[in-house]
Amino acid sequence: MQSRLRMGMIGGGVGSFIGPIHRLAAEMDREIEMVAGVFSSDSLRSRNAGEMYRIDPLRAYPSLDEMLASEGKRDDGIQFVSIVTPNHNHLPSSLAALSAGLPVICDKPLTATLAEAHELAETVAATGLPFAVAHTYSGYAMVREARARVAVGALGNVRKVVVEYPQGWLAGEACGKQADWRVDPARAGLGGCIGDIGVHAFQLAEFVTGLEVAELLADLGTVVPGRLLDDDCSVFLRFSNGARGVLLASQIEVGELNGLRIRVYGEKGGLVWKQEVPNILTFHTLDGRTEMIHAGGSQLGPDAMARTRTPPGHPEGYLEAFANLYRDFAAILRGQPAPLLPGIATGLRGMAFIAAAVAASRDRPGWVSLTV
Amino acid sequence: MQSRLRMGMIGGGVGSFIGPIHRLAAEMDREIEMVAGVFSSDSLRSRNAGEMYRIDPLRAYPSLDEMLASEGKRDDGIQFVSIVTPNHNHLPSSLAALSAGLPVICDKPLTATLAEAHELAETVAATGLPFAVAHTYSGYAMVREARARVAVGALGNVRKVVVEYPQGWLAGEACGKQADWRVDPARAGLGGCIGDIGVHAFQLAEFVTGLEVAELLADLGTVVPGRLLDDDCSVFLRFSNGARGVLLASQIEVGELNGLRIRVYGEKGGLVWKQEVPNILTFHTLDGRTEMIHAGGSQLGPDAMARTRTPPGHPEGYLEAFANLYRDFAAILRGQPAPLLPGIATGLRGMAFIAAAVAASRDRPGWVSLTV
Amino acid sequence: MQSRLRMGMIGGGVGSFIGPIHRLAAEMDREIEMVAGVFSSDSLRSRNAGEMYRIDPLRAYPSLDEMLASEGKRDDGIQFVSIVTPNHNHLPSSLAALSAGLPVICDKPLTATLAEAHELAETVAATGLPFAVAHTYSGYAMVREARARVAVGALGNVRKVVVEYPQGWLAGEACGKQADWRVDPARAGLGGCIGDIGVHAFQLAEFVTGLEVAELLADLGTVVPGRLLDDDCSVFLRFSNGARGVLLASQIEVGELNGLRIRVYGEKGGLVWKQEVPNILTFHTLDGRTEMIHAGGSQLGPDAMARTRTPPGHPEGYLEAFANLYRDFAAILRGQPAPLLPGIATGLRGMAFIAAAVAASRDRPGWVSLTV
Amino acid sequence: MQSRLRMGMIGGGVGSFIGPIHRLAAEMDREIEMVAGVFSSDSLRSRNAGEMYRIDPLRAYPSLDEMLASEGKRDDGIQFVSIVTPNHNHLPSSLAALSAGLPVICDKPLTATLAEAHELAETVAATGLPFAVAHTYSGYAMVREARARVAVGALGNVRKVVVEYPQGWLAGEACGKQADWRVDPARAGLGGCIGDIGVHAFQLAEFVTGLEVAELLADLGTVVPGRLLDDDCSVFLRFSNGARGVLLASQIEVGELNGLRIRVYGEKGGLVWKQEVPNILTFHTLDGRTEMIHAGGSQLGPDAMARTRTPPGHPEGYLEAFANLYRDFAAILRGQPAPLLPGIATGLRGMAFIAAAVAASRDRPGWVSLTV
Repeated sequence: MQSRLRMGMIGGGVGSFIGPIHRLAAEMDREIEMVAGVFSSDSLRSRNAGEMYRIDPLRAYPSLDEMLASEGKRDDGIQFVSIVTPNHNHLPSSLAALSAGLPVICDKPLTATLAEAHELAETVAATGLPFAVAHTYSGYAMVREARARVAVGALGNVRKVVVEYPQGWLAGEACGKQADWRVDPARAGLGGCIGDIGVHAFQLAEFVTGLEVAELLADLGTVVPGRLLDDDCSVFLRFSNGARGVLLASQIEVGELNGLRIRVYGEKGGLVWKQEVPNILTFHTLDGRTEMIHAGGSQLGPDAMARTRTPPGHPEGYLEAFANLYRDFAAILRGQPAPLLPGIATGLRGMAFIAAAVAASRDRPGWVSLTV
Repeated sequence: MQSRLRMGMIGGGVGSFIGPIHRLAAEMDREIEMVAGVFSSDSLRSRNAGEMYRIDPLRAYPSLDEMLASEGKRDDGIQFVSIVTPNHNHLPSSLAALSAGLPVICDKPLTATLAEAHELAETVAATGLPFAVAHTYSGYAMVREARARVAVGALGNVRKVVVEYPQGWLAGEACGKQADWRVDPARAGLGGCIGDIGVHAFQLAEFVTGLEVAELLADLGTVVPGRLLDDDCSVFLRFSNGARGVLLASQIEVGELNGLRIRVYGEKGGLVWKQEVPNILTFHTLDGRTEMIHAGGSQLGPDAMARTRTPPGHPEGYLEAFANLYRDFAAILRGQPAPLLPGIATGLRGMAFIAAAVAASRDRPGWVSLTV
Repeated sequence: MQSRLRMGMIGGGVGSFIGPIHRLAAEMDREIEMVAGVFSSDSLRSRNAGEMYRIDPLRAYPSLDEMLASEGKRDDGIQFVSIVTPNHNHLPSSLAALSAGLPVICDKPLTATLAEAHELAETVAATGLPFAVAHTYSGYAMVREARARVAVGALGNVRKVVVEYPQGWLAGEACGKQADWRVDPARAGLGGCIGDIGVHAFQLAEFVTGLEVAELLADLGTVVPGRLLDDDCSVFLRFSNGARGVLLASQIEVGELNGLRIRVYGEKGGLVWKQEVPNILTFHTLDGRTEMIHAGGSQLGPDAMARTRTPPGHPEGYLEAFANLYRDFAAILRGQPAPLLPGIATGLRGMAFIAAAVAASRDRPGWVSLTV
Repeated sequence: MQSRLRMGMIGGGVGSFIGPIHRLAAEMDREIEMVAGVFSSDSLRSRNAGEMYRIDPLRAYPSLDEMLASEGKRDDGIQFVSIVTPNHNHLPSSLAALSAGLPVICDKPLTATLAEAHELAETVAATGLPFAVAHTYSGYAMVREARARVAVGALGNVRKVVVEYPQGWLAGEACGKQADWRVDPARAGLGGCIGDIGVHAFQLAEFVTGLEVAELLADLGTVVPGRLLDDDCSVFLRFSNGARGVLLASQIEVGELNGLRIRVYGEKGGLVWKQEVPNILTFHTLDGRTEMIHAGGSQLGPDAMARTRTPPGHPEGYLEAFANLYRDFAAILRGQPAPLLPGIATGLRGMAFIAAAVAASRDRPGWVSLTV
C-alpha cells in the first residue's frame, strides 16, 4: 500500500479562511495528510491551531526554520509544504522550503511583485523541484471539459473571451482579518483586486482557451475612499491568435458573491461557465443549438470525468475543485504526469499580468470626452 | 370618446423585421391606429405591404412626398409618422415629415452620422414638434423600476455600471435582408454593432442611472473577415459623478440571442436586470440581502406599475415594452407629460457616443504588451 | 383587402382583469377589431367601459339582447362574440349568441357545471357555429413545439406527465373583484381552484401529449378557513395509453405567481416547459443530452415558428400566446383550418375533469394512516 | 489533542458508488479516520478495496465477524461502523456491530422490511448505543436554515408541502452494479424507487417542517417492463397539523438527474429549496416579497452557519452535506449533542412510510373514470 504524502502548512492559523480549506482539499482524496505546520510565529498560537487541525502538538511550529530542521530529522517528516500566508510571505517561504529540498504548493498570486516572481522562478528552475500555484478554479471538472472542447476545436478558432470576477465584500470599509491584509500594499503587494481575483480570471482565460494574452489595456480604480490599492478593474485583452477579450474584476459590486464566469466564442460555437453553478457547462453551436452539459454525465471527456467524485445531479463545488489541484500535485510528487496543474510558469505569467495592468492603467491614455 | 391617433409608417415593407413590430406596438393599447404608409419606393410592393397590414390600399404610398401630400388633404389624415427604415433614411424622412408639420417617432440610432444628428436636432428645435427615438428597452416596466429606485437613492451614490449587449447572429457571413444593410456603411452609417445595439446599451446605462457618460475609452473591432464595420465592441465609461463603467456589445458571440443586461452598483446596494428575463429585477443590499422584484407585483413604484398590463407571473416582453414607448408618445401628442420617453436629445447623445467610440478606438492608444 | 373581423365583448367592464387582455389579444395581429360590447348591465357603467376601450359609445350596450338586436341590423355589425364574464354567465351568453347566429370564443371553464356543458355542446353541435375556449397556454409557441415533438415521437411512448399550476394570490382572505367571484359557488360553479386553473393544467397535459386522461384520483381541499370552494388540488392521472400522471394546482402557495409548468417523459426523452419563462423548451434524451430550445430559433417546427412574432431573445409572453388563439379563431371564421384551437370538445372534457375531480375527492377513499 | 475517531466500513468495495463517498464525508472534517473495513466477502477483493482506500491491508477483512474479533483486540481498534451495503444487509450488520458494542451509522433505508426495522429499533434501544441513518440531504446548510425558519414560525402555520425527487437513470433497462441490486427485491427489500429515494423525500419533508405525516394515499407503479419493484411513485400526504402534502419520486423521468426539491407554504410565507442548487434558499412572504438566501451569508441562523465551510459564493455540495452528518455523529460519540442527526426513530418512520405507501397503492382505491 502506498502511504499518504505528508504535508506541512505555512500559514493558516486560527481565523484563517484559506488554511482550513487547503487542509481539507489536500486530504480529501486520501493522497495527502497534513502532519505539521507553521501556523503562527507565536508558539502558543501555532500550537492552538495545530490542535484545531488535530495534529501532533509537537509538530505545530512557531517558525519555518524550526519546522524544516525538526521535520528533516524525522523518518516520517513532511514531504512538501503548502504556503497559505499573505502574498508578501510567498517568496521567503518558498525559497526556504525549496532550499530544504521540499516541493511547494503556494497560494496565488505567486509573489508580491514581478521582480520577486522572477527570483522565485529562477530558484525553482535551479532546484528542479515541483512547484504549483493554487489556481483553484482550473480544478473544476467543467473547466477541464471547457478546455478540452476548445482544444479539440469544438468552437473553431477562438475569437472572443469575456471573463468576469465580480465580488462585493469590499464595497464597504474593509474589516476583519481577511480584508485587512488584502488592502495593505505591504502584505498584498502590487495589486489589490487585480492581484486577489483578477489574476484568477486571467489564469482561467488562458487555461480554458489554451491561448496567451499578448496585449492589454487596463482601467484599474480605487472606489472606496482612502483605500491604497485597486478595488475595481476592467481590462481589454488581445490574445496571441488575435482574439479579442475583456476581463472584469471588482470587489465593490454590492451583492455579488464570488461570481467568476467565463464565456468563450469561436467561429463555430460558444461556451459559458459560471463558478457559482459549477456543474453545468453551456455549449452553443453556430446552427442555433444550445446544450447543457452536466458534471458527471456521459457527455464528458476523460479529464473532466476523472475530476468528478459523484454521479450527475450531486453537486460538487469549490472544495472538490481545490482537491483536484492537490490530487494533481500528489500525482506529480509520485512521478505521474499532471500537465494541467498550474506551475511556476503560470504563476509568473500572473504576476506579469498584474504588473502590466497596473502600469497600463496609470496614465489613462486613450480616453476621450463625450459631449453632445 | 377620444379617437385614436393616426399613424403613417415610413419603411416596414414585406420582409421587414421591425416594421410589423412598430405597427403592433403602436396599436397595442388602442391609442394609435396605423392608417397609411410608405412601405416601399415601388408602388406594387408598397401596396402589397399595405395589404399585409390590412390598411386601405390607396393609403399605401410609393413615396413620402405622396403620402404627405395626400394625407395632408384628408380630414382623417395621418397625425404623425413612424420611421423604421435603415439608418441613412432617418434624416431625410424626419426632415420631410417635420417640415410637413408632423411629429416623428424614429428608430435608433438617430441618424447615420453625428453631423446629421446635429442637423436633425436643430430642425426639431426649430419646429418645436414632438420627436421620439425608439429605445425600446427603456420601455420595460422593470427598467422603469430600476431607474426609479436609483433615483430615490436606493443604491446610494452610483459607483459602477456594467452594461452588456451580446448577440451572435452576425457570427457568420451576414445574410438576409436584416443583416445586409447593417453591415453596409452606406446604409448603417458610422457604426456597425456599436450603432445597432451598442447605442441601446449606452442609452440604457444613462437611463437607469440618471447619469451622463463623461468620458470613454473604446476597443471596437471587426471580427468577421471582410466586414466593413465593427461587429464587436468594448468600451470603458466614466460617468459625470465619477462612477466607473463598462459597456460591451457584440454580434459575433455564437449562441447569444439578445442578451442585453445591466448591473448597477452603488454605495448601499446593487441591481441587476436582464432583457431575456425581463419581468424580474434583482436587488442587493449592503447587508447581504437579495430580493427578486416581480413585474406587476406589489413592490413596484407607480411608473413601473403603470407599464404592466397583466398580474405578476404573466410574462410581458419585448412587444409590450415597445408599446409602452408608443403609449408615451401618444400621451405627448395629446398634451400629457411623458418625461422618460427618449427624445431628440437622447438620440443626439447616442450619436455622439457612437462617434466618440469609433474615434477613440482608431489608434489603439494605451495598449501594452504582456510578456513574462 | 380583407377587412378585420368585428368582435363584440360580453363582460370586461371597468376593473375587469381579463376583458382588456382579451381585447388586446384579439386585436394584436390586426385580424380582429372590437367594435361593441356588453360591458355591464348598468347603462352608464357599460358606456364608461366603452370609452375606456375607445369604442363608439352607442355600441356599449347594457344587455346582450340589445347588442344582438342592434348589431344585427348594422351592415358593420359584430361577427362574433367574446365571452369574458364569470363562469355562471358562460352558458346563457353562449346560447343567446349562438341562437343569433354568432360564433363564440369563451373564457374557461366552459360553464359552471357539467350539465350546462353538455347543454352547450349540444347547442353548438346543432348550430354548427364555430366555438372556441380560451385555453391561453396552448397558444404559446413553445407549447406548440412541445406538442409537435411529442407527436412525431421524439420522446417515444409517453410514460409520465407532471403538470403543476401553483399560485399564491388566494392564500389570504379573498379580496377584490377578481377574487370575490372565484370563491363564490354561485358564480364560479362547481370548482374553485380546480375550475379556475386546474382545468388549464388538465388541458395543457392533454394538449401537449395528445393523450386523453382516462382515470383520476383526486385530493381537493379548502385551506383558507371559511372558503366554500377548493383552493388546493392534487390529482393522480392515468392516460389512455397507460401513462401515469400528476396534476397539482393551488392558489394558497404563498409566493407562487402563475407558475404553470409541465414535464413529459417518454421512453426516449423528456421535456420541460414553464409558463413564467415561456420562450425556452428544455429537451432531454436518454443518452444524457440536454438541449435548450429557444422561441424564434432555427430549431423550431413550422407550427411554433408561425406563432412567434420576433427573433430569438426578444421575449414574447402571455398576451402573445393569447393572441395566437384569437388568430386561430379568426382563421376559422375565414374558413381556414386551425385544428389545435381548443373548441367545444375541449371545453366539455375540462368540465368532465372538474366534475370527476370534485367527486373523486369527496369521500377520501384509499387513505391509510401512517404510524410507526 | 483529541484523536480522530476510528471507523470501520461494511460494504463499499471496488466499484461501489456510496462507499468512497462515505469515506470522504466521514474524514472531511478530521473528526474521523477510516482504519478498517469489510469491503467484500472475498479476501482478495476486500484487500484490493483496502488498498484503494490506502488503509492497512491487514485491516481489510473478508467478514464482519473477523473485523469485530480482530479490531476488538487492538488498542487502536475501530470505535464505530459505517454500513454501506445493499439494504438486505443493514439488519444483520447492524445487529452484529451493536452486539459487539459498536455504534452504527447506516445508509438508508433502515432495513429491507418494516419488521426488520422494528427488530433493529428494539436492539438499538436495548443496547443504548448511538445509531444514525444517512439521510444526507438533511445535512445541507440551507435545509437546516429552512427547518430553523419554519420552527420559529417564519411561515406561520404550515399548510402545504410539495416534495419531489425526480431521477431518470433507471428509465432504461437497469444495468451496472448500482442499478442491479436496487431493482432486486431480495436485496432492495420492499420498495424500489420509494425505498431508494422516496424515503429521502419523506424524511426531508418531516425534517424541514418539524411535522409528522399522519396519513397518506399512494400511487406506486412499475413503468419499465419486467421490473419487479416500483420505479415511479406519487403520494398524497396529510400532516399531523392537517397540512396537505404531495410527495413525488421517480427514477424513469428521462433527463432528471438528482432533482430533490421541497416547497413549504404556510399562512405567512413560503420557501423553496432545490438540491441541485443547494446554496440558495428562496423565501416568499405574504406581502409579495421574494428573497434569495445564500449559504455562508449573514442572513443565516447559527445551525446553518455552523454547517458551511466557505464564504458565500463558494459552492458547497453533496459531499459537504454528507460530511455534516458524520460531524454530527462524531459529536454524539464524543458526548456532545446533535439533536438533528437522523437516528433510529427516523429510520423506523421511513420504513413505516415505505410499507404504508406500498400497501396503500395496492388496490387502487378511489380511482374514477373520466369520460366526457
